[in-house]
Amino acid sequence: MRVPPAPELLALDTATVRDRWTLREIIDGCVRHRFGAISPSRERLAQTGVKEAARATRGSGLTVAALHGGGRFPAPERKERHAAIDDTRRAIDEAAALEARCLVLVEGSLPGGSKDLAGTREMVRDGIGKVLDHARAAGVPLAIEPRNPMYCADQGCVNTLAQALDLCDELDWGGTALGVAVDVYHVWWDPQLKAQIERAADRRLLVFQISDWLRSSKDILADRGMMGDGVIDLPLVRSWMEAAGYRGFHEVEILSAGNWWRRDPDEVLATCRIRHQTAC
Amino acid sequence: MRVPPAPELLALDTATVRDRWTLREIIDGCVRHRFGAISPSRERLAQTGVKEAARATRGSGLTVAALHGGGRFPAPERKERHAAIDDTRRAIDEAAALEARCLVLVEGSLPGGSKDLAGTREMVRDGIGKVLDHARAAGVPLAIEPRNPMYCADQGCVNTLAQALDLCDELDWGGTALGVAVDVYHVWWDPQLKAQIERAADRRLLVFQISDWLRSSKDILADRGMMGDGVIDLPLVRSWMEAAGYRGFHEVEILSAGNWWRRDPDEVLATCRIRHQTAC
Repeated sequence: MRVPPAPELLALDTATVRDRWTLREIIDGCVRHRFGAISPSRERLAQTGVKEAARATRGSGLTVAALHGGGRFPAPERKERHAAIDDTRRAIDEAAALEARCLVLVEGSLPGGSKDLAGTREMVRDGIGKVLDHARAAGVPLAIEPRNPMYCADQGCVNTLAQALDLCDELDWGGTALGVAVDVYHVWWDPQLKAQIERAADRRLLVFQISDWLRSSKDILADRGMMGDGVIDLPLVRSWMEAAGYRGFHEVEILSAGNWWRRDPDEVLATCRIRHQTAC
Repeated sequence: MRVPPAPELLALDTATVRDRWTLREIIDGCVRHRFGAISPSRERLAQTGVKEAARATRGSGLTVAALHGGGRFPAPERKERHAAIDDTRRAIDEAAALEARCLVLVEGSLPGGSKDLAGTREMVRDGIGKVLDHARAAGVPLAIEPRNPMYCADQGCVNTLAQALDLCDELDWGGTALGVAVDVYHVWWDPQLKAQIERAADRRLLVFQISDWLRSSKDILADRGMMGDGVIDLPLVRSWMEAAGYRGFHEVEILSAGNWWRRDPDEVLATCRIRHQTAC
């Protein structure tokens, strides 16, 4: 028997409303629809500045579940790789200023022209390794987000939970500075999903993102579904997360050019609230 | 140093020219462009009938590297599952009539409305198990094709080489009736790819399909690239296949609604021939 999740665990990744609302409007909307937390991207913060964003979220009573950004470590030139590391240190500082529970990295992938996937993955490992002390000092855990393999060429070359957890073990053995973001859209297909969530355990499970995979999906970039509209058994995955000890937020991230991005964000948030109770 | 592959190993999956040519024209085209083999789908055979197709390929001197089809095992009703098993036995007979080196299964995935991925995967396992004796008797090995996870909802729920090889071990331990089709488009991203090709070894490596992943790809269904136009290190993957003992064909399968399907098939085949030598 599915027990509906605690309503206050609902959180919003701000990409779900794209640019229809400002950060201020998103915060008000989340309060109005009784979300427990928000997770902005750094691009979103740039619109208001970090201080103003921190002030607004603090005043709203919302938790900042995660800041998304930083990373993009792979680059052909050493200078560019250093710049990405510096930029990720700034992202860590921004997450600290926001009192975000973690920073979810955008790992990055093959630099233009490169076909060296193994070498690119080493650059990601080395990049994370180089910002980890800064993250520890700031008290901001870093989350590696395994991305659907269809994003391997450009967005992220960490593509399974096993691969992400291998990185955690290699760089942060026994520690709590590094963990993973489990986004059902990216990992739902993985035959190892249950086993790897168990392996991760509460210590490594930093973020849980929800949406759905639409059976008829043709678009790689922005055709994610509302919870309940697709094929993912969300209650099952949630039960695995909870069995592993995860007690954090359920963060909605729906990139949907053809549907949800076109709708009034108030309708989108109201639908998220209902589906969180009925389909997760 | 990359050594170009033996030219006679080039093979054509007939889907690459879609419906611009009949099977007869494809056979003539493959002979003209000195391909060593073709691999038709069952749908393609249906156009001429199996006997006529067998006569035409035999007369051409081309090898039939594989027949593609059969499978689609998951279904809600027992009756439908039995029908899929019967149909796959017919596909095995057709492969035998064609003297195809193997039958590449289309595993199938979640029946309409289902979110039970584990149960669906069990239906695939059971379905393969039930046709295996027929395949042994016919002398037609079956190839499981792990498909890119973005096809997990509809086309195939076997999504990694490890998962496919686990099925081979479970159903055909120590045997040669079951193997895998390694299509770079489906598996190029897999951090376990090299290790699993080694594990498969010559005995399980039945098919090697080539194309490329376009960096800017937005379309899930039909936006595959010509070898050399994307990010896959094809010579590297070929070297792993060869190190594992694979000596079979290199079968081009390019589904490309926006580009290659629009071109004169003679141009497509000529380009395949050149790229096989320069980019694989």
